[in-house]
Amino acid sequence: MSEFRGYVGKSLEFLKTNKIGVGDSVKILADLTYLGIIMPRYEHSDDKHLVLKLKSGYNIGLEIEKIEKIEKIEKIEKISSPEKSIDKKESLEKNPTLPKILLLSTGGTIASKVDYRTGAVTPVLTAEELNSSVPELAKMANVDAEVLFSEYSENIMPEHWIKIAEKLKEYSNSNYSGIIIAHGTDTMHYTSSFLSFALAGFPIPIALVGSQRSSDRASSDAALNLIGAIKFLVNCKTNGVYIVMHKDENDETVACHMGTRVRKSHTSKRGAFQTIGDNPAFIIVNDQIHRNMKGDFFKVKEFWPRINLNTKVALVKYHPGYDSNLLGKIIEMNYGGIIFEGTGLGHIGKTMYDNVKKANEKGIFLGMTSQCIDGRVRMTVYESGRDLLNLGIIPLENMIPEVALVKAMWALGNSKTLEDVKQLMLLNIASEISE
Amino acid sequence: MSEFRGYVGKSLEFLKTNKIGVGDSVKILADLTYLGIIMPRYEHSDDKHLVLKLKSGYNIGLEIEKIEKIEKIEKIEKISSPEKSIDKKESLEKNPTLPKILLLSTGGTIASKVDYRTGAVTPVLTAEELNSSVPELAKMANVDAEVLFSEYSENIMPEHWIKIAEKLKEYSNSNYSGIIIAHGTDTMHYTSSFLSFALAGFPIPIALVGSQRSSDRASSDAALNLIGAIKFLVNCKTNGVYIVMHKDENDETVACHMGTRVRKSHTSKRGAFQTIGDNPAFIIVNDQIHRNMKGDFFKVKEFWPRINLNTKVALVKYHPGYDSNLLGKIIEMNYGGIIFEGTGLGHIGKTMYDNVKKANEKGIFLGMTSQCIDGRVRMTVYESGRDLLNLGIIPLENMIPEVALVKAMWALGNSKTLEDVKQLMLLNIASEISE
Repeated sequence: MSEFRGYVGKSLEFLKTNKIGVGDSVKILADLTYLGIIMPRYEHSDDKHLVLKLKSGYNIGLEIEKIEKIEKIEKIEKISSPEKSIDKKESLEKNPTLPKILLLSTGGTIASKVDYRTGAVTPVLTAEELNSSVPELAKMANVDAEVLFSEYSENIMPEHWIKIAEKLKEYSNSNYSGIIIAHGTDTMHYTSSFLSFALAGFPIPIALVGSQRSSDRASSDAALNLIGAIKFLVNCKTNGVYIVMHKDENDETVACHMGTRVRKSHTSKRGAFQTIGDNPAFIIVNDQIHRNMKGDFFKVKEFWPRINLNTKVALVKYHPGYDSNLLGKIIEMNYGGIIFEGTGLGHIGKTMYDNVKKANEKGIFLGMTSQCIDGRVRMTVYESGRDLLNLGIIPLENMIPEVALVKAMWALGNSKTLEDVKQLMLLNIASEISE
Repeated sequence: MSEFRGYVGKSLEFLKTNKIGVGDSVKILADLTYLGIIMPRYEHSDDKHLVLKLKSGYNIGLEIEKIEKIEKIEKIEKISSPEKSIDKKESLEKNPTLPKILLLSTGGTIASKVDYRTGAVTPVLTAEELNSSVPELAKMANVDAEVLFSEYSENIMPEHWIKIAEKLKEYSNSNYSGIIIAHGTDTMHYTSSFLSFALAGFPIPIALVGSQRSSDRASSDAALNLIGAIKFLVNCKTNGVYIVMHKDENDETVACHMGTRVRKSHTSKRGAFQTIGDNPAFIIVNDQIHRNMKGDFFKVKEFWPRINLNTKVALVKYHPGYDSNLLGKIIEMNYGGIIFEGTGLGHIGKTMYDNVKKANEKGIFLGMTSQCIDGRVRMTVYESGRDLLNLGIIPLENMIPEVALVKAMWALGNSKTLEDVKQLMLLNIASEISE
C-alpha cells in the first residue's frame, strides 16, 4: 500500500510536509486533541480532510485547515492497522476457544461503500469483506459469514423475510452462540418483527445490525455496532430478536432493542433507533452489558416456526379528509386485513363507518393502533371508540402500527379462520404488547 | 349543595367519621402529604376515592384505603371553591384593565364531561361553561366565549378547518390580545397546520388548547392548559399558531408548540404533545415564559389569508409488501397530490416506480417525507433516492408527514398550476421547515 494511499492535493502535501504516512499513529491538535491512526482514503475523496481511526475503532474526518499541530507518536494500542484489515486470512483465523457467531448479510449501508465519483452509497461488500473490515470481530468470536442477498432495505420485500427466516431455521440446532443479520436500517424493524413472529421461541439470540454511515467512511458506525452485537450475543444469556445499534451520538454506548418494540426514529443520526415507551432491552457500555428487559423476549417457550405470510394487509393512517372511498377500494381489492393507524386512543372519523361495517361483514380482520408514537389504544373511553368496537375493530393494545401490520400478514398466513387470526393478534408472542 | 355531594358508601362513611365535608380545606397524609379542598363527586362515582383540589388548581383522586390521616385545616389560599365555580356572573365579570381574549370552542375533551352512568366522556360544555368552570381565567383576562361547533377531533373534517379559519379572519383586526381555540387533542396538530398556512401572517397569537382528561374529572388538565394559554397569549409579544398543553407530567409546566412542528406523541399522558426535533417554542413555568423559538413563527410578514383547500391528497405510508396497485387506484381516483411517508432518508421500494412514473406523468404533485419521527429527507445519498428524484418526487426537507399532507391540500386549493403547488410546498411559510 502506498504510504499516502488515496490522499491527493492539499492533504497529500500536508502529510508529506509533516512526514506522516498512512498507518502512522499520531497526535493531532485541532479543536480537541486526537490520538489515532491515519487511515487511507478512497479514490475521488476531497483533499481537505485526513481520516483518523480513534482508539475506540471509530473513524473521524479532520479538516486540515483546522489542524494546529500533528506529530507521530509511539504506536497506540492497536485496534486494526489498515494493512492488517485487508489481510483476510489473519483476521478470519479461527481460535477454537472463542464462541461461534454466524453473520448473514442482506445488504444495506453496513455492507456498502461510498462511490467517490458520485458521492453516493452502493452495496458492494460481501459478508466476508464486512467481517474482515472489522478485524476486532475475529478477536471476540469465530465469525462465519454468508451473503443471503444484497438489497437496500427499502427494497427488502416480504419474500426476503421468508428467505432470512428459512435460513435461520436451518441453524436453530447449531452450535452458534448468536446470529448477526447485517441489514439496511430503513426497514430493519419490519424484518425484525417478522422474524420475531415467524421464529417464535428461536433458541439462539439474533441481532439485526446496520449502520447509518457506510463502513469505509469516516464516522461510520458499522464497526461499533458489529462489535457491540458480538459482545451482546456472546454474553446476553437469553434468546430473542434484537436490533443492535448506537444508542445515541456517544460512541461508547450500543443499545439492543427488542425487535418488536423499536422504530427508526431519525433519518440520519447514528442513534437512530428507539425502543418505544421504554428503555432498550440491553445497553452495552464498553464491556458492560446492562439488562433492562424484564422476563423473556419470547412469550412462548418452545421453538415454534411458522414461516408463512399473506401480504394482503393494508395500513390505513387516518387523517381529517381521509376519503372513505379509498377504504372502499381496499375492500374491493380483497384484502384480508386492515390495520388502522387511528388518532389518539384509537379513533377514526364517522365518515369511515359505512366502509368499516362493509369490511367487517366481508370477514376482513380489522385492527386498531394509534398514530401517537407511544401509548395504548383504549376504545371504551369515547363514543367513537365504542362505535368502532361495535363495528368489529379489534384494539391492539400498545402494538406499534408497523409491527401490527407485519403481525397481521403473518397471522393471516398461518391461520385458517378469522377467529384464529384474532386470537393470534391478541396473543403476546414476542413482547409486541408491553405492560 | 349537600355537605357530602356525590359521596356514597365507603367514601361517605369515611368523610362522616372524620367530620369532613365538601368544600373543607384538609391536610391528608397518604403516600405524600396533600393540602387541598374536598371536591364534590358525580353521580355513579365509585366509593373508594376522595377528590381533592390542590392549590395549583389541579384535581387528584385519593384512594381512601391508603389515607393514613385526614384533618380539617384553616382555609388554604382559595383557587376556586366549588360553589363559586358554578356562579357564572362572578367569574365572567369584566375588569376593563385586563387584556381581552377570545375563546372559540370546537369540542373535544376539554369541553366534555364524564357520563358517570357509562364511564364514557361526552361533549357537553359550551365555551361559556368552559370559561366559567375555570374562574381563574376571569382574573387574568376578559374572556369572550363562542361555540363554533361541538365535535370530537376525530370527526373534525377539512370543512371544520375552513369554518375556524373564516371565523378567525373576522377577528384579524380586533382588539383581542390572543385567541384560544378549545379543540380535541386527536387531530389538533392537523388543524393547527391548516390555520398556519391558511392564515399566514395572522397578527394575533392563536393558541389551540385541549385536555387529555375532561374538565370535571379528578386529574383534569383542562384548567392548567387554559391558564397557561392565557398567560402565553397575554405576554408572548409575538404572533403565530401554537398548541398549548402540559409539557410533561409536571403540573407546573406548560409547553407552547409551533403548530406546524408538533405531534400528539402519547395516547393518554397529559404531556402528550411534542415538538419534533426541538424544544417547544415557549415554556411556561408558573408565571415565567421562556422563549426557545428563534425568529418569527410566520415567515411572511403581511397577513395573507388563503382559506381554500383541495382534499384530494393521499398519504401513502410505504412499507415492505405495500401493494403498488393501491397506488394505482389512488392515481385512477384523480388525486391531485400524494405525500409519501417513505423510509429513512426518503425511500420507497422499486416495486412502486412504475406507478410513481404514471402519477408524475398525470401531473399529480408527489412529495416525500419520512416515517422516521425526526430528521430530514435527503434523496441524493442512495441510488433509490436519486431514482425517485428522477421520477419527479419532491423531497420536503424535514416537514412532518401530517403537516405536508395538510399543506399539500392547502397548496392545491390555492394554486392554478402544478408549478405553483411545488413552489408553495417548498416555501417555508409557517416554520414547517426548520434548520
